[in-house]
Formats: sequence, C-alpha cells, structure tokens
Amino acid sequence: MIIVMKPEATDEEIKGVVKSIEEHGMQVHLSKGSEMTIIGVVGDTTKQGVNGFMAMRGVGNVVQIMKPYKMSSKKFKPEGTIIKIGDVEVGGNRIAMIAGPCAVESEEQFLTIAKDVKAAGADILRGSAFKPRTSPYEFQGLGEEGLKIMKKVKQLTCMPIETEVMDTRDVEMVAEYVDVLRVGARNMHNFDLLKEVGKTNKPIILKRGMSATIKELMLASEYIMKEGNHQIILCERGIRTFETATRNTLDISAVPVLKEETHLPVIIDPSHAAGNRKYVPSMCKAAIAAGADGIIVEVHHEPEKALCDGPQSLTTQQFAELMPQLKAIAEAVGRTL
Amino acid sequence: MIIVMKPEATDEEIKGVVKSIEEHGMQVHLSKGSEMTIIGVVGDTTKQGVNGFMAMRGVGNVVQIMKPYKMSSKKFKPEGTIIKIGDVEVGGNRIAMIAGPCAVESEEQFLTIAKDVKAAGADILRGSAFKPRTSPYEFQGLGEEGLKIMKKVKQLTCMPIETEVMDTRDVEMVAEYVDVLRVGARNMHNFDLLKEVGKTNKPIILKRGMSATIKELMLASEYIMKEGNHQIILCERGIRTFETATRNTLDISAVPVLKEETHLPVIIDPSHAAGNRKYVPSMCKAAIAAGADGIIVEVHHEPEKALCDGPQSLTTQQFAELMPQLKAIAEAVGRTL
Amino acid sequence: MIIVMKPEATDEEIKGVVKSIEEHGMQVHLSKGSEMTIIGVVGDTTKQGVNGFMAMRGVGNVVQIMKPYKMSSKKFKPEGTIIKIGDVEVGGNRIAMIAGPCAVESEEQFLTIAKDVKAAGADILRGSAFKPRTSPYEFQGLGEEGLKIMKKVKQLTCMPIETEVMDTRDVEMVAEYVDVLRVGARNMHNFDLLKEVGKTNKPIILKRGMSATIKELMLASEYIMKEGNHQIILCERGIRTFETATRNTLDISAVPVLKEETHLPVIIDPSHAAGNRKYVPSMCKAAIAAGADGIIVEVHHEPEKALCDGPQSLTTQQFAELMPQLKAIAEAVGRTL
Amino acid sequence: MIIVMKPEATDEEIKGVVKSIEEHGMQVHLSKGSEMTIIGVVGDTTKQGVNGFMAMRGVGNVVQIMKPYKMSSKKFKPEGTIIKIGDVEVGGNRIAMIAGPCAVESEEQFLTIAKDVKAAGADILRGSAFKPRTSPYEFQGLGEEGLKIMKKVKQLTCMPIETEVMDTRDVEMVAEYVDVLRVGARNMHNFDLLKEVGKTNKPIILKRGMSATIKELMLASEYIMKEGNHQIILCERGIRTFETATRNTLDISAVPVLKEETHLPVIIDPSHAAGNRKYVPSMCKAAIAAGADGIIVEVHHEPEKALCDGPQSLTTQQFAELMPQLKAIAEAVGRTL
Repeated sequence: MIIVMKPEATDEEIKGVVKSIEEHGMQVHLSKGSEMTIIGVVGDTTKQGVNGFMAMRGVGNVVQIMKPYKMSSKKFKPEGTIIKIGDVEVGGNRIAMIAGPCAVESEEQFLTIAKDVKAAGADILRGSAFKPRTSPYEFQGLGEEGLKIMKKVKQLTCMPIETEVMDTRDVEMVAEYVDVLRVGARNMHNFDLLKEVGKTNKPIILKRGMSATIKELMLASEYIMKEGNHQIILCERGIRTFETATRNTLDISAVPVLKEETHLPVIIDPSHAAGNRKYVPSMCKAAIAAGADGIIVEVHHEPEKALCDGPQSLTTQQFAELMPQLKAIAEAVGRTL
Repeated sequence: MIIVMKPEATDEEIKGVVKSIEEHGMQVHLSKGSEMTIIGVVGDTTKQGVNGFMAMRGVGNVVQIMKPYKMSSKKFKPEGTIIKIGDVEVGGNRIAMIAGPCAVESEEQFLTIAKDVKAAGADILRGSAFKPRTSPYEFQGLGEEGLKIMKKVKQLTCMPIETEVMDTRDVEMVAEYVDVLRVGARNMHNFDLLKEVGKTNKPIILKRGMSATIKELMLASEYIMKEGNHQIILCERGIRTFETATRNTLDISAVPVLKEETHLPVIIDPSHAAGNRKYVPSMCKAAIAAGADGIIVEVHHEPEKALCDGPQSLTTQQFAELMPQLKAIAEAVGRTL
Repeated sequence: MIIVMKPEATDEEIKGVVKSIEEHGMQVHLSKGSEMTIIGVVGDTTKQGVNGFMAMRGVGNVVQIMKPYKMSSKKFKPEGTIIKIGDVEVGGNRIAMIAGPCAVESEEQFLTIAKDVKAAGADILRGSAFKPRTSPYEFQGLGEEGLKIMKKVKQLTCMPIETEVMDTRDVEMVAEYVDVLRVGARNMHNFDLLKEVGKTNKPIILKRGMSATIKELMLASEYIMKEGNHQIILCERGIRTFETATRNTLDISAVPVLKEETHLPVIIDPSHAAGNRKYVPSMCKAAIAAGADGIIVEVHHEPEKALCDGPQSLTTQQFAELMPQLKAIAEAVGRTL
Repeated sequence: MIIVMKPEATDEEIKGVVKSIEEHGMQVHLSKGSEMTIIGVVGDTTKQGVNGFMAMRGVGNVVQIMKPYKMSSKKFKPEGTIIKIGDVEVGGNRIAMIAGPCAVESEEQFLTIAKDVKAAGADILRGSAFKPRTSPYEFQGLGEEGLKIMKKVKQLTCMPIETEVMDTRDVEMVAEYVDVLRVGARNMHNFDLLKEVGKTNKPIILKRGMSATIKELMLASEYIMKEGNHQIILCERGIRTFETATRNTLDISAVPVLKEETHLPVIIDPSHAAGNRKYVPSMCKAAIAAGADGIIVEVHHEPEKALCDGPQSLTTQQFAELMPQLKAIAEAVGRTL
C-alpha cells in the first residue's frame, strides 16, 4: 500500500499516519520529496486498509498495490483447480456443458428436456426450483417439490444436477438434493448466503452480480473459501450497461481477466446476458474461443410455454444443432467438448 | 400490454397468441393493419407477461403499458404515506434527519456520537451491527452485541434507532432491538429477506441496489408490502456508473421520479453515494431542494479512527454546522427541519 | 507519478525504467523494498506518461499522483473565474439563468419565448441553429438563417444570446452572431472543435460528454485554454447510465467535485438530463442548492409544437412560476438570482 | 408508431393528437378501450416522431415500432455488403485482418511494423497521423507528414492503408493519401464529419462511440449513407462501463446483434477495448467465433517505446503467433483467414 500525503501535509500529520501504520503492526517506508511525501506500507493491511488511511488528516491518496484476494488468486494455486461433479470435470481440458430449463415446471417437462440435452451431449442438468423474480407477482418456482423432481430426473438420466439456492435457511436442505449449488447474480453480495454455502461440501457456481466488478466477484468467492469450501466455479452472465439491444452486456473479457487472476474455473451464461435466443449461439462460440471452461445455457423443448425466460431459451433442437459447432471451436483452441 | 406481431407473422401465429391471451383470462383487442398486426391485451397480465408472449412465434415486440407495481404506486394511495417512528414522522412536511456512525464500535463511541447528533437536531440514530463488507477480511460488525449497545443508547438518549438486517434468520431477533429495519443496497434483490421483513411490524428503510432501476426498487417494495408491511421508506444511495470521482453517482432525479410514482416516503443517503465527506454537505442540500423527505447520513466524532467508512463520515462538528444550512433550504421549499 | 515494479522484475528492467525517466528529463526516486521496488518520478510527465511506462517490461502498475490538468485546476487561479457576458456575470454570487427553446424555429417563436423568459427573469437567451440529431431524418436546424433570427431578437430584447457550434468551419461565422458559443455533449471530445473555439474571444459553454468523466471534462477545457481562451463555463447535463426513468442521469455531485477541482464556473442543464419537463423544476432546485453558478434550461411557449425536445421543455408559464422558487433557494444558500 | 393516451386523457386531447398525425401526412388507427385509448400511426414518422407526440397533452407513452434506420437495415440489402479495399474484401467469407501501430511515428517505425504484419498475414495496414488524445499535453500525431509516410510504406509493401480523420476540413486531403477513412469513437456523433466522409468515395470504418447504443451506431452510418457513400464498415471497440479491469468493456454481442440488423460488415477492435495486450488474443478469438468480418488490432515492434497505446499493442511476434490460432477458429466457423 502506498500513502501519498497532500503537498500541504504537516509534519504532525505525517507522524500521525506513521504511528497508525506501526500500531497496526505494519512497516513504514518513508520517502520525503520536495513536492510531496510518500509512505510505503508493508505487511498485513487487512486491519487498517485504504479507507482507514484515507480518513486520516493530511492524506491525499492511498493506493492498494497488493491484490485484496488471497485464496482465490492464481498465486495461491498456480496449477489451476479442477472440480469434479459426478464424472464430470470442470476446469480441465474438456469444456463442460450445463444445460436445462430456467425453471423446473413439472416432471414431464424436466425429464423431456433432460433427455434431449443429454442426447445432444450436455454434461450437467440445470434447473431452478427457487426463482428470484423482479416482481412478486411472477412465478416463484416450485420450491422443494421442484427439487424432488430434479432428483428423480437425475436418477432416470444419470446426469448431475445443479440448482439455485437463495435463502440461508434452505442451504442444507437444497444441498441434500443436488450436486451443485448455484448462487445467483442477485445474491453475489448476500454475504450470509456465501458463508452458508461455504460450509457445505458441494461445488458452487458463483454468478457475477450484474454490477459487480471482477475484483468483487473474486472477493465474493473469498467469502466462500474462507469457510472451507474451495470448489467454486465463477460464472460471467452479463453486466448492466446502457445498451438495451441485449438484456445485459456479456463481458467476454472477464474470461481472460479471470484466467489471469484466479485458479478457479470460469464459465459463461449466455442466456441471461442475451435475453434473446437469437444471440445465444454466437455468444457460446465466443465464450469457448475466449477460453471459458464451460457454458451454462437455458434450453426448453417448448420455450413459448415456458413459465420463465422463454425468449432466451434455446429450443432443444437448436441446442442439438449448436453442439457440433461448439465442438469444432473447442478443438480449434486445443480442447475437447 | 400491446403485442406487435412481426410483419411476416402468419395467421396461425396470430391465432396462437390470441388463444394464449384468452386462455390466461385476458381480453384481446385485435387490429390488423396493412403493415403489421397489433394486439392489445386487457386484464391481469401477471399470469402471462411480457416475456411469456415474447417467447411465442411471430411476436416482434411486447410493450408493457400498465406499471407493474400495485400497492406502492401513487394511485393506490394518492394522499401519500406518513410513517411514524417513535415521535418522528417520515413523509410529512417535516424533513427527517437520520444520523450516526457507519458501524457501532463501542458503547462509548455510539453514545458520544448519539449525543452530538441529537444536540445538532437529528431525529433518528443510525448504526450497523451487521456489516456487508466486500472483503471477508474487513471488520464485519459487532453482531448482537452491537444491537445491545444500540438499545442502551436509545434509552439514554430517547432517540429511535435503525439498523441493517442481512440474514433472514436474524430478522426476528434484530426487530426486537430496533425501531427501524434497514435492507441494504446489496440485499435489495434478496427476495427472501424482503419477504421476511415484510412479516414484521417495523418500518423498513429499503435502499436502492447500486444497479437497480427505480422500477425495480418499487417492485422490491412490493415484495415487502405483499407480506402485509406497508411502512416502507425508499432510499436513493447512488448508482454504479463509470464516474470514479465519487464512489457512486447520486441519482438526484430519483427523488422527483419516485415522488411521481409512489406514495411512499423517499430519503437520500449522500454518504455512500459520495464516498468522501467533502461532497456530502452539497448533496444533502440538493436532496432537500429536490424534495426528499429525509436524509440518512454517516457522522463520526473521530472519522480517522472509524472501523469503516471513515472517509465519507461527517465529523460531528461538520454535522452541527450543516444543520442550520439544511433548515434554511427546507424552509425555502416550504418545509421544516 | 509512482511506478510499481512487478515483484519478479529484474535489475535490468528496473534500470531500463530508470533510464527512460532520466532520458525524458525527470528525476528518479528509487526505493527498493523486500517485496517490490517502487520508483517515484518527479518532473514534467507529459513527455512520457502513465501509458508509456505501463508498456515497459517489468512494470506492474503506474499511479498518476499529480492531476493531469493545469490551467483549469483550482491551484492555477484559487480566487475563481467570473465570466462577463454583456452585463451578466457567471461565476459570481449571482446565479445566471440561461433559458430559451431547444431550436430556433422562426422569428415569431424565438421572440415570443425571449420576451417571456426575460419577463420571468432570465439573463441569457439560448437557442440552437445547428442541431446535433441522432437521426439524419430529423430536423437539423435552420443554420445561418437561425443565427440571423437570434441576432435580431437579441437587439429587440437586449438579452445576450448563446448557441451551439458543431463544425470547425462554422466557428468564425457563428462567433460573429452570438455572445456565447456552446460545445455540445456529443462534441466534448471533438478536439479540433475545442481548439477552434479556443481561438475565439467568446465565452464558451462546454458541456460534459454523456460518458465523459469529470477529469475528461476538465482536460477538454484544457484544450480550449491552451489556445488562449480562458472564458469557459462547464456544464453538467446528465450522464448515460442503465436507468431509463430519465433520459440521462444528472450527476449532481459533479457540482461540488468541480467546485473543488477548478476555478471555472459550473452550470447545470436539467432539461437534457431529465428528458421530461415534470422533473426539471426539482432538478433546478437541486442544482442551486448544490452550488451551481447557473442553469441552462429549455423553455417553449408551445412545447407540443416544438420541432425538437418538446417533452423536456418547460412551458413559459412553468418557467415564470419556477423562478421565485429558485430565488428562495438561492437566498437560502447565500446567493442571489 | 403506437401512441398510448393517458387513462385520464380527454376527448379533446385525443382529437388533438389525431389531428396532428393527419396534418403530418400519416394515417390514424384509433382503438378506444375501456382502460385507455391507443392510437396506431402508419406512414412516414420522420416529420413528427416519438418526441413530438410525447410533448402533446394527454399522451402517456409513445412506442416506436419500425426501426428508425433505413439504408443500413438488413431489409434494405438482405444479401449483405462486401466492401473492396484494393484486393481485399471485407464482409465476404474471408476474415479481414487490419493491423499496425496506434500512431505513425517515423518511416522506419511504420515500415518495420508493416513488413512484419504483412509477413504474418495482415491484409490492411492501420496507423494514425491525427490522434484524438484526452489531454492536450500528449502526443497529437505527425499530421500530414504522417500521411506521407503511410503512402510511401503503402507503395513499398503493396498493402492498402487506413487512417483516422478528425476534422471536416481535413477529409478531402486525407482521402487523397489513404484507402480507408476511419471515424473514431469520439467522433461517432460528430455529424458534420459523418456528412463530410459521406461525400467521399472511400470506404469508411465507423467506430462505435464509447457510450453509443447499437441503434445510434446504425443511425450514424445512416448519416454517411445519406450523402451517397454506402461503403461502411462498423466497428465495435468496447463501451464504457463500471468495470475497470479492462479499459472498456468489449460488447461481443454487438456482433450477432448487428449481423441481424444490418447488411454492413462488422469488425472488432480488441486493443482499445482491452487496454492491455494480455487480453487481446482471447478477444480476437472470441470476435471471430462470434461472427465478426474482421479485426483491427494495434501491433508495434517496440511497444515500450511507442508514443501512444504501448500497453495495449501486441508485439509483432505475438501477432505472428496469434494468426495461425485465429485461422483455426475461422475455419471452425466455416470461414477463411
């Protein structure tokens, strides 16, 4: 951390900052220039951080040099993390395809889609029983009944299943039904939920909040890891911008940025980013070309009857047609699918 | 709701949409033009909404005409809502000042600040015992211990107190200690928490998410109202934009927009929007001039020692100097403070 | 400027950076720590700046300490700049009201509005003869014919007039007709236009680009000042965000931030920020309360017949009713209007 | 266009709107419902558009149904546009690679890079002689001297060249030197410049403004086409968002969206989007996978000595290594490179 004192800072103010650094167990590296005084701080800055020093008299600017994340940083595990979900590996050479409807609507619906996406080559089955909806007047999901359907379809198709959990009180129960827990974009900053899923032994798909920076996404994963659960898959799903042609703006650069910063696998959700199935195939292709470790995509056999996210769901037929195209790109970047 | 069919939509596709409208209990108002067919939909659109129709074949565009919120809309209660918190009224002619430290740090700290802001004219005391921090390595608040301090200081100063609640499991407990529950910006889309605070009989300060639209803020308030609790104070606290001169960008226009759309009181949090105490006084003045019903502002007697948000906290002295200035503006717009 | 070398930077790489600093005539302030090497750079960094050093091997981060603007910074002229436009002063204790239609449509229209806003207390008359329109199929303005109308109305009403100039080739001609030249938001980064208006001796209203940072706005003003013209009025007019309830999001904090950073007067354009006249009065009030030196607002006697910006134009009657309210707020903050 | 009257709109207000529609030569399609009156408008809406009607009494909302662009829309030319630049075709099956330094610095520099990128397979040579720089104190380009160098290097390497033009007064001169004119992101809304390049017979690369919507980009191209020049290549180069890990956020979805909306070729500029060469290769791959018709990328033989954009320039060696990887992806999506 570097503290830049204001040009007009008094000696007393400089001493005050130095004293505070030392009291918090850090070392001071003082360099007084003709124009201004700069104070380098070495040591554990978690007890007194940027904001702490910014609040002190005479301080002009505080610059964080070290990255604030620890366990999720690449340095912590340079070889990369591979997460096993049943027989599927996420983070290895093979790209993982997670597909299924937005919401579990009925056993018939979920089983039909499950069989279709499995036949097309999907690895993991997605589906939500608890739905975060902007309006309380919209379909809120089947709840535990939906989880039971998921579990049954899992047994019938032998596919691992993943689902969203929204409430700290539900984590334990949901974890009994499914193979992967998903923390949705709207809950990326629900810190109690992060802590709670961190206490389970299930892999977590952590979706980036719609206005969260990449740094904040990594700090959210840090909350989970701090509780002992290191099986985290980071998911870019579009950020909120001024553009309205798509529901959100897929931040494709998040893939190379995260690949540089963290050892955790990175997947892309093109469905929520696009909001329109027309654009989903191109975005899947871009994701794989950019280096993503997997894709989570919404697929429905009858999107026009879907209880949610119909417009952005691929039809099962579109998904089946897309898979060989994605395979070709995966091979072009030296991976399998 | 208006459904605009694609120019190339077939008769069969038009019939399909009409049938779906009727099946969902709504009425059809069909108008076939030379260029395109437009279908007006009248009735309760909550069962099949914009997305449902968007997913149907032949549909080009769906336009929502009626506002999606109900109980929070101005029509629902044109006279406006006044919320009583102890002897304080929020939403009436008098502007409510809510002040205090970001976090409760100790009884001494909280009592000192409480006495100071009360002497300066504050109405309600703010303070957090549970802190949503971006990094798990930062101070997370005193928890229930902090609530006990708040309650004690309430008794000593006779000021109503408000605090943040983050976890559904804590709602009942927190509600026993304080007069007002706050749902923070990061939890505006934590729907289970909204439902849970909706079951209490305490007034709720609902903060706008940092990338939430005003419409989404009002829909979040619907979640609370749907559970029976109509005592909601909406709080604008800055939205996330590209500008970095301030921590967030205070959306001052949210005040007149909300005043047009809803009967609920609207307050402003300049501290989190600014991120720097230098700008807080101007923003307080702007808020009152724009028509806000109150202000929630961070104040600390020793910001340079604050465990969080020091840089954006006013000193108790600055707060005392600001109050008469705000009073003058309140009077200029025909209100009291 | 502070250059933070990567932890793994070699001695050769450090020497390379040091050499480059010295070759560009700056002084080096080297401090080697156990974790990393930090290089302070003192002197004129305009020849080799942040990006130049960022591109060098071994460099991890470069932090600009000194503000990049010079003549527009507060230090350059701490007493503040007052700009005289006819008898009107902008930047002094009195708040300047600039009002008029979006576009000059006809002599009758412009004269009618001019008389009305003058009667209500406006100081300067606004109007555009050259219109930047998103679509080429929309009304593009009357061109020089419009300027002639403006000049005539100026003579009839004795009000100073201001108008937009869009093309470098028009600057000289436009400057002959009007008292103030306006550079629109879409041209804030049209550097050749900035240079050209910098060569005139007319006051310039420089509007912030819709996605320009405050820092970029000040650097745009440097372009004008560098050519010799220091009579610049900075104008905040709303930035582009995700919110759609208003056309843009008025960044009210830009007022205190600019007041801290620069000696130039700061005004607010609530009309383009709001996009809807309903919200304009509140935004005018907020602007004055926040410390703005003036307001530029669109007013039309028949907004429903306006050739552009009708929805956001106040009626002349609304403007007349608003003025005493603004006066009250001006007085509450110790100013006149 | 659909006009939705307010529920409380009077008959007189409805008649006023109907009259205005008819006066502007459009046809009315009135449908009075129990809740509200909806007026369909058929015909040429360019004389009185959304804003015009929005300003009328009794109007609640106006919805544009038809796309506002004409000549750039896909309907206008469903077969797609192929633009010939020397022997290179942009918009056909082969992906065009445009490479070169940010700025032309000297003949030696430009020739070295030209030879290197040509050897690696680049089709067109980029380079700027006029530089739009945020600060007036930074390197502004060599001007016409730079264009002379470009022309000479063109003759020596037989590569077509492209460069930016910023000032309406320079268009004719610049067009004499180069094969392709570039309108930069900061000038996308410089309408006079758009008109001026529209009068030339040179292909135009039109870059998306950093906060321009896709619709606005297409309307900007409409300005050029209206003057007679239909040879336009649209370029996505990153939009401004809250994320700071990259300089801008590459909107990869703009590729499929534009491919759906327009017949014009679409290329990607990963360099300005990333701001860091580390991320450029992944973004190039994503662009081709998503369906882009070409890439414009900054390459420098000595980025650490570059006078601008050094950090985001690929080295010539990196570019040479990247090309075969891009070729593999091009083939995976059925194209050549």
